[in-house]
Amino acid sequence: MPKIVNHEKQKEKVAEAAWRVISRDGMGEATVRNIAKEAGISPGSMRHYFSTQSELLTFSMNLVSEKIRERIMTKHYDGDPLEAMEALLLEALPMDKERRDETEVWFAFITKAFSDPALQPLSKKIHEELHFAIKKIIHGLIELSLAQDTLNTELEANRLHSLIDGMAIHSILSPEEMRPEKMKKIVHEHLKSLLKKA
Amino acid sequence: MPKIVNHEKQKEKVAEAAWRVISRDGMGEATVRNIAKEAGISPGSMRHYFSTQSELLTFSMNLVSEKIRERIMTKHYDGDPLEAMEALLLEALPMDKERRDETEVWFAFITKAFSDPALQPLSKKIHEELHFAIKKIIHGLIELSLAQDTLNTELEANRLHSLIDGMAIHSILSPEEMRPEKMKKIVHEHLKSLLKKA
Repeated sequence: MPKIVNHEKQKEKVAEAAWRVISRDGMGEATVRNIAKEAGISPGSMRHYFSTQSELLTFSMNLVSEKIRERIMTKHYDGDPLEAMEALLLEALPMDKERRDETEVWFAFITKAFSDPALQPLSKKIHEELHFAIKKIIHGLIELSLAQDTLNTELEANRLHSLIDGMAIHSILSPEEMRPEKMKKIVHEHLKSLLKKA
Repeated sequence: MPKIVNHEKQKEKVAEAAWRVISRDGMGEATVRNIAKEAGISPGSMRHYFSTQSELLTFSMNLVSEKIRERIMTKHYDGDPLEAMEALLLEALPMDKERRDETEVWFAFITKAFSDPALQPLSKKIHEELHFAIKKIIHGLIELSLAQDTLNTELEANRLHSLIDGMAIHSILSPEEMRPEKMKKIVHEHLKSLLKKA
Protein backbone atom coordinates (compact mmCIF):
# COMPACT_ATOMS: atom_id res chain seq x y z
CA MET A 1 0.00 0.00 0.00
CA PRO A 2 2.44 2.66 -1.17
CA LYS A 3 -0.19 5.39 -0.91
CA ILE A 4 -0.62 5.00 2.84
CA VAL A 5 3.13 4.90 3.37
CA ASN A 6 3.48 8.13 1.43
CA HIS A 7 0.67 9.68 3.45
CA GLU A 8 2.46 8.84 6.71
CA LYS A 9 5.78 10.05 5.31
CA GLN A 10 4.16 13.29 4.25
CA LYS A 11 2.64 13.74 7.72
CA GLU A 12 6.09 13.31 9.23
CA LYS A 13 7.51 15.83 6.79
CA VAL A 14 4.86 18.33 7.88
CA ALA A 15 5.50 17.54 11.55
CA GLU A 16 9.22 18.13 11.11
CA ALA A 17 8.49 21.42 9.38
CA ALA A 18 6.31 22.41 12.34
CA TRP A 19 9.18 21.55 14.64
CA ARG A 20 11.60 23.77 12.71
CA VAL A 21 9.14 26.69 12.66
CA ILE A 22 8.48 26.49 16.43
CA SER A 23 12.16 26.13 17.25
CA ARG A 24 13.20 29.02 14.99
CA ASP A 25 10.28 31.48 15.20
CA GLY A 26 8.30 30.46 18.28
CA MET A 27 4.90 28.87 18.81
CA GLY A 28 3.09 32.09 17.82
CA GLU A 29 4.34 31.61 14.25
CA ALA A 30 3.33 27.96 14.05
CA THR A 31 0.33 28.66 11.83
CA VAL A 32 -0.93 26.21 9.22
CA ARG A 33 0.17 28.65 6.51
CA ASN A 34 3.74 29.03 7.83
CA ILE A 35 4.17 25.32 8.40
CA ALA A 36 2.90 24.51 4.90
CA LYS A 37 5.41 26.98 3.47
CA GLU A 38 8.24 25.45 5.50
CA ALA A 39 7.22 21.94 4.37
CA GLY A 40 7.05 23.09 0.74
CA ILE A 41 3.40 22.17 0.22
CA SER A 42 0.32 24.29 -0.47
CA PRO A 43 -1.70 25.52 2.53
CA GLY A 44 -4.79 23.95 0.93
CA SER A 45 -3.31 20.45 0.93
CA MET A 46 -2.54 20.62 4.67
CA ARG A 47 -6.07 19.46 5.46
CA HIS A 48 -5.26 16.07 3.88
CA TYR A 49 -2.85 15.48 6.72
CA PHE A 50 -4.21 17.37 9.73
CA SER A 51 -7.64 18.82 10.29
CA THR A 52 -6.64 21.22 13.09
CA GLN A 53 -3.50 23.02 14.25
CA SER A 54 -3.74 21.18 17.59
CA GLU A 55 -3.74 17.84 15.78
CA LEU A 56 -0.63 18.85 13.83
CA LEU A 57 1.20 20.05 16.95
CA THR A 58 0.29 16.91 18.86
CA PHE A 59 1.56 14.70 16.04
CA SER A 60 4.76 16.72 15.85
CA MET A 61 5.38 16.65 19.61
CA ASN A 62 4.65 12.92 19.68
CA LEU A 63 7.39 12.32 17.10
CA VAL A 64 9.84 14.18 19.31
CA SER A 65 8.89 12.31 22.44
CA GLU A 66 9.28 9.00 20.58
CA LYS A 67 12.72 10.07 19.46
CA ILE A 68 13.68 10.82 23.07
CA ARG A 69 12.21 7.55 24.32
CA GLU A 70 14.12 5.61 21.66
CA ARG A 71 17.36 7.37 22.57
CA ILE A 72 16.92 6.39 26.22
CA MET A 73 15.83 2.82 25.47
CA THR A 74 18.65 1.99 23.07
CA LYS A 75 21.35 3.26 25.38
CA HIS A 76 23.21 0.66 27.40
CA TYR A 77 23.78 1.41 31.02
CA ASP A 78 26.53 -0.83 32.31
CA GLY A 79 28.59 -0.82 35.41
CA ASP A 80 27.87 1.22 38.51
CA PRO A 81 24.08 1.57 39.02
CA LEU A 82 24.49 5.08 40.44
CA GLU A 83 26.34 6.19 37.32
CA ALA A 84 23.65 4.59 35.17
CA MET A 85 20.96 6.54 37.05
CA GLU A 86 22.89 9.76 36.58
CA ALA A 87 23.31 9.09 32.86
CA LEU A 88 19.58 8.38 32.52
CA LEU A 89 18.65 11.66 34.25
CA LEU A 90 21.07 13.59 32.04
CA GLU A 91 19.19 12.28 28.98
CA ALA A 92 16.25 14.44 30.08
CA LEU A 93 18.43 17.57 30.25
CA PRO A 94 19.64 19.84 27.42
CA MET A 95 23.26 18.69 27.52
CA ASP A 96 23.83 19.36 23.80
CA LYS A 97 22.38 21.34 20.89
CA GLU A 98 19.90 18.64 19.85
CA ARG A 99 18.40 18.28 23.33
CA ARG A 100 18.44 22.05 23.76
CA ASP A 101 16.21 22.43 20.70
CA GLU A 102 13.94 19.69 22.00
CA THR A 103 13.66 21.45 25.35
CA GLU A 104 12.76 24.78 23.76
CA VAL A 105 10.03 23.22 21.64
CA TRP A 106 8.79 21.22 24.60
CA PHE A 107 8.37 24.41 26.66
CA ALA A 108 6.60 26.13 23.81
CA PHE A 109 4.32 23.10 23.55
CA ILE A 110 3.40 22.90 27.25
CA THR A 111 2.86 26.66 27.42
CA LYS A 112 0.51 26.40 24.46
CA ALA A 113 -1.22 23.45 26.17
CA PHE A 114 -2.17 25.76 29.07
CA SER A 115 -4.63 27.51 26.75
CA ASP A 116 -5.38 24.67 24.27
CA PRO A 117 -7.06 21.71 26.01
CA ALA A 118 -6.56 19.53 22.90
CA LEU A 119 -2.82 19.50 23.60
CA GLN A 120 -3.13 18.62 27.28
CA PRO A 121 -3.32 14.81 27.04
CA LEU A 122 0.05 14.60 25.28
CA SER A 123 1.62 17.26 27.48
CA LYS A 124 0.46 15.22 30.49
CA LYS A 125 1.66 11.93 28.98
CA ILE A 126 5.20 13.22 28.43
CA HIS A 127 5.25 14.64 31.95
CA GLU A 128 4.07 11.32 33.40
CA GLU A 129 6.60 9.27 31.46
CA LEU A 130 9.49 11.23 32.90
CA HIS A 131 7.89 11.08 36.32
CA PHE A 132 7.64 7.30 36.05
CA ALA A 133 11.32 7.00 35.04
CA ILE A 134 12.34 9.19 37.99
CA LYS A 135 10.21 7.19 40.41
CA LYS A 136 11.98 4.05 39.17
CA ILE A 137 15.32 5.65 39.99
CA ILE A 138 14.22 6.45 43.55
CA HIS A 139 12.86 2.91 43.94
CA GLY A 140 16.13 1.57 42.52
CA LEU A 141 18.13 3.42 45.18
CA ILE A 142 15.95 1.84 47.87
CA GLU A 143 16.04 -1.68 46.40
CA LEU A 144 19.80 -1.58 46.13
CA SER A 145 19.92 -0.48 49.79
CA LEU A 146 21.77 2.65 48.75
CA ALA A 147 19.14 5.13 49.95
CA GLN A 148 18.70 6.58 53.39
CA ASP A 149 16.11 4.63 55.37
CA THR A 150 13.98 7.68 56.00
CA LEU A 151 13.44 8.48 52.31
CA ASN A 152 9.87 9.42 51.36
CA THR A 153 9.62 7.87 47.87
CA GLU A 154 6.77 9.98 46.52
CA LEU A 155 8.18 13.25 47.83
CA GLU A 156 11.68 12.48 46.52
CA ALA A 157 10.33 11.58 43.07
CA ASN A 158 8.51 14.92 42.95
CA ARG A 159 11.56 16.78 44.21
CA LEU A 160 13.95 15.21 41.69
CA HIS A 161 11.50 15.62 38.80
CA SER A 162 10.99 19.31 39.65
CA LEU A 163 14.74 19.77 39.91
CA ILE A 164 15.30 18.21 36.46
CA ASP A 165 12.63 20.30 34.75
CA GLY A 166 13.77 23.45 36.55
CA MET A 167 17.37 22.93 35.41
CA ALA A 168 16.11 22.33 31.88
CA ILE A 169 14.37 25.73 31.86
CA HIS A 170 17.32 27.47 33.45
CA SER A 171 19.73 26.10 30.88
CA ILE A 172 17.57 27.75 28.21
CA LEU A 173 16.95 30.99 30.14
CA SER A 174 20.44 31.36 31.42
CA PRO A 175 22.79 29.14 29.37
CA GLU A 176 25.98 30.83 30.55
CA GLU A 177 25.02 30.08 34.16
CA MET A 178 23.38 26.65 33.88
CA ARG A 179 26.00 24.94 31.77
CA PRO A 180 26.05 21.17 31.05
CA GLU A 181 28.86 20.58 33.59
CA LYS A 182 26.80 22.30 36.28
CA MET A 183 23.70 20.24 35.51
CA LYS A 184 25.85 17.12 35.71
CA LYS A 185 27.29 18.19 39.06
CA ILE A 186 23.86 19.07 40.51
CA VAL A 187 22.41 15.71 39.44
CA HIS A 188 25.42 13.97 40.98
CA GLU A 189 25.21 15.89 44.28
CA HIS A 190 21.46 15.50 44.49
CA LEU A 191 21.61 11.71 44.11
CA LYS A 192 24.47 11.60 46.59
CA SER A 193 22.39 13.52 49.12
CA LEU A 194 19.78 10.73 49.02
CA LEU A 195 22.30 8.00 49.88
CA LYS A 196 23.13 6.46 53.21
CA LYS A 197 26.03 8.25 54.81
CA ALA A 198 29.12 6.06 54.48
CA MET B 1 -0.05 67.35 34.40
CA PRO B 2 -3.28 65.37 34.16
CA LYS B 3 -2.58 64.35 30.58
CA ILE B 4 0.58 62.45 31.46
CA VAL B 5 -1.13 60.77 34.39
CA ASN B 6 -3.93 59.65 32.10
CA HIS B 7 -1.43 58.40 29.57
CA GLU B 8 0.28 56.24 32.20
CA LYS B 9 -3.08 55.04 33.53
CA GLN B 10 -4.14 54.11 30.02
CA LYS B 11 -0.90 52.19 29.47
CA GLU B 12 -1.57 50.22 32.63
CA LYS B 13 -5.11 49.54 31.49
CA VAL B 14 -3.75 48.15 28.21
CA ALA B 15 -1.11 46.13 30.07
CA GLU B 16 -3.76 44.60 32.31
CA ALA B 17 -5.86 43.76 29.26
CA ALA B 18 -2.81 42.02 27.75
CA TRP B 19 -2.43 40.08 30.98
CA ARG B 20 -6.04 38.88 30.85
CA VAL B 21 -5.78 37.86 27.18
CA ILE B 22 -2.58 35.86 27.75
CA SER B 23 -3.91 34.20 30.88
CA ARG B 24 -7.24 33.29 29.24
CA ASP B 25 -6.35 32.58 25.60
CA GLY B 26 -2.59 32.07 25.53
CA MET B 27 0.32 34.07 24.18
CA GLY B 28 -0.57 33.22 20.57
CA GLU B 29 -3.72 35.33 20.93
CA ALA B 30 -1.93 38.32 22.46
CA THR B 31 -2.11 40.36 19.26
CA VAL B 32 -2.40 44.15 19.27
CA ARG B 33 -5.93 43.80 17.86
CA ASN B 34 -7.13 41.37 20.55
CA ILE B 35 -5.57 43.36 23.38
CA ALA B 36 -7.11 46.61 22.11
CA LYS B 37 -10.51 44.90 22.02
CA GLU B 38 -10.05 43.57 25.58
CA ALA B 39 -9.01 47.04 26.79
CA GLY B 40 -11.99 48.62 25.05
CA ILE B 41 -9.96 50.97 22.83
CA SER B 42 -9.53 51.13 19.06
CA PRO B 43 -6.64 49.15 17.53
CA GLY B 44 -5.47 52.38 15.88
CA SER B 45 -4.99 54.20 19.18
CA MET B 46 -2.75 51.43 20.56
CA ARG B 47 0.27 53.04 18.89
CA HIS B 48 -0.08 56.00 21.25
CA TYR B 49 0.86 53.71 24.09
CA PHE B 50 3.12 51.05 22.63
CA SER B 51 4.94 51.00 19.33
CA THR B 52 5.52 47.23 19.21
CA GLN B 53 3.93 44.11 20.65
CA SER B 54 7.21 43.31 22.44
CA GLU B 55 7.12 46.71 24.14
CA LEU B 56 3.56 46.10 25.30
CA LEU B 57 4.35 42.61 26.62
CA THR B 58 7.45 43.88 28.42
CA PHE B 59 5.49 46.67 30.09
CA SER B 60 2.77 44.21 31.10
CA MET B 61 5.21 41.65 32.50
CA ASN B 62 7.06 44.39 34.35
CA LEU B 63 3.86 45.41 36.12
CA VAL B 64 3.39 41.83 37.28
CA SER B 65 6.93 41.47 38.51
CA GLU B 66 6.58 44.72 40.47
CA LYS B 67 3.40 43.40 42.04
CA ILE B 68 5.23 40.26 43.11
CA ARG B 69 8.21 42.22 44.43
CA GLU B 70 5.91 44.49 46.44
CA ARG B 71 4.09 41.50 47.89
CA ILE B 72 7.39 40.02 49.06
CA MET B 73 8.78 43.31 50.36
CA THR B 74 5.75 44.33 52.40
CA LYS B 75 5.46 40.98 54.11
CA HIS B 76 6.85 40.74 57.62
CA TYR B 77 8.91 37.74 58.42
CA ASP B 78 9.14 37.39 62.17
CA GLY B 79 10.26 34.64 64.43
CA ASP B 80 12.17 31.57 63.37
CA PRO B 81 14.57 32.42 60.48
CA LEU B 82 14.08 29.00 58.88
CA GLU B 83 10.32 29.52 58.82
CA ALA B 84 10.85 32.99 57.34
CA MET B 85 13.02 31.51 54.56
CA GLU B 86 10.37 28.91 53.82
CA ALA B 87 7.66 31.57 53.67
CA LEU B 88 9.77 33.64 51.29
CA LEU B 89 10.33 30.70 48.95
CA LEU B 90 6.61 29.88 48.96
CA GLU B 91 5.93 33.43 47.67
CA ALA B 92 7.58 32.38 44.41
CA LEU B 93 5.29 29.35 44.07
CA PRO B 94 1.67 29.15 42.82
CA MET B 95 0.16 28.50 46.25
CA ASP B 96 -3.16 30.20 45.34
CA LYS B 97 -5.24 31.26 42.32
CA GLU B 98 -3.55 34.68 41.97
CA ARG B 99 -0.02 33.27 41.92
CA ARG B 100 -1.17 30.43 39.67
CA ASP B 101 -2.28 32.96 37.06
CA GLU B 102 0.99 34.85 37.44
CA THR B 103 2.93 31.63 36.93
CA GLU B 104 1.02 30.73 33.77
CA VAL B 105 1.60 34.15 32.25
CA TRP B 106 5.24 34.09 33.31
CA PHE B 107 5.78 30.80 31.46
CA ALA B 108 4.04 32.13 28.39
CA PHE B 109 6.29 35.18 28.58
CA ILE B 110 9.59 33.32 28.93
CA THR B 111 8.62 30.88 26.18
CA LYS B 112 7.88 33.82 23.90
CA ALA B 113 11.21 35.37 24.91
CA PHE B 114 13.01 32.33 23.44
CA SER B 115 12.04 33.55 19.97
CA ASP B 116 11.71 37.33 20.63
CA PRO B 117 15.05 38.85 21.70
CA ALA B 118 13.31 42.10 22.71
CA LEU B 119 11.71 40.27 25.65
CA GLN B 120 14.92 38.65 26.85
CA PRO B 121 16.29 41.43 29.10
CA LEU B 122 13.16 41.41 31.28
CA SER B 123 12.89 37.63 31.25
CA LYS B 124 16.52 37.55 32.42
CA LYS B 125 15.97 40.25 35.03
CA ILE B 126 13.07 38.41 36.69
CA HIS B 127 15.10 35.21 36.65
CA GLU B 128 18.07 36.96 38.25
CA GLU B 129 15.99 38.63 40.96
CA LEU B 130 14.66 35.30 42.17
CA HIS B 131 18.14 33.83 41.90
CA PHE B 132 19.52 36.64 44.06
CA ALA B 133 16.81 36.10 46.71
CA ILE B 134 17.57 32.37 46.77
CA LYS B 135 21.30 32.98 47.05
CA LYS B 136 20.58 35.21 50.06
CA ILE B 137 18.69 32.36 51.69
CA ILE B 138 21.61 29.97 51.21
CA HIS B 139 24.01 32.62 52.58
CA GLY B 140 21.61 33.18 55.49
CA LEU B 141 21.75 29.51 56.41
CA ILE B 142 25.55 29.68 56.45
CA GLU B 143 25.76 32.95 58.40
CA LEU B 144 23.38 31.64 61.04
CA SER B 145 25.60 28.53 61.30
CA LEU B 146 22.62 26.38 60.43
CA ALA B 147 24.04 24.95 57.21
CA GLN B 148 26.28 21.95 56.78
CA ASP B 149 29.92 22.97 56.59
CA THR B 150 30.45 21.32 53.23
CA LEU B 151 27.72 23.33 51.45
CA ASN B 152 28.70 24.65 48.01
CA THR B 153 26.86 28.00 47.97
CA GLU B 154 26.67 28.50 44.22
CA LEU B 155 25.62 24.95 43.49
CA GLU B 156 22.98 24.98 46.23
CA ALA B 157 21.54 28.29 45.01
CA ASN B 158 21.22 26.80 41.50
CA ARG B 159 19.73 23.60 42.86
CA LEU B 160 17.12 25.35 45.02
CA HIS B 161 16.23 27.83 42.27
CA SER B 162 15.75 25.00 39.75
CA LEU B 163 13.65 23.11 42.27
CA ILE B 164 11.38 26.14 42.85
CA ASP B 165 10.85 26.83 39.15
CA GLY B 166 10.37 23.13 38.42
CA MET B 167 7.67 22.85 41.10
CA ALA B 168 6.02 25.98 39.73
CA ILE B 169 5.70 24.35 36.29
CA HIS B 170 4.54 21.06 37.73
CA SER B 171 1.82 22.70 39.76
CA ILE B 172 0.45 24.08 36.48
CA LEU B 173 0.99 20.92 34.42
CA SER B 174 -0.18 18.53 37.06
CA PRO B 175 -2.17 20.45 39.70
CA GLU B 176 -3.75 17.35 41.26
CA GLU B 177 -0.27 15.93 41.89
CA MET B 178 1.75 19.05 42.80
CA ARG B 179 -0.65 20.57 45.31
CA PRO B 180 0.21 23.53 47.56
CA GLU B 181 0.73 21.26 50.60
CA LYS B 182 3.21 19.17 48.66
CA MET B 183 5.18 22.21 47.50
CA LYS B 184 5.29 23.38 51.11
CA LYS B 185 6.54 19.99 52.29
CA ILE B 186 9.19 19.77 49.56
CA VAL B 187 10.51 23.27 50.36
CA HIS B 188 10.59 22.32 54.06
CA GLU B 189 12.39 19.01 53.47
CA HIS B 190 14.81 20.55 51.01
CA LEU B 191 15.88 23.30 53.44
CA LYS B 192 16.12 20.71 56.21
CA SER B 193 18.45 18.61 54.05
CA LEU B 194 20.89 21.53 53.89
CA LEU B 195 21.12 21.85 57.68
CA LYS B 196 23.69 20.44 60.06
CA LYS B 197 22.56 17.13 61.42
CA ALA B 198 21.39 17.63 65.02
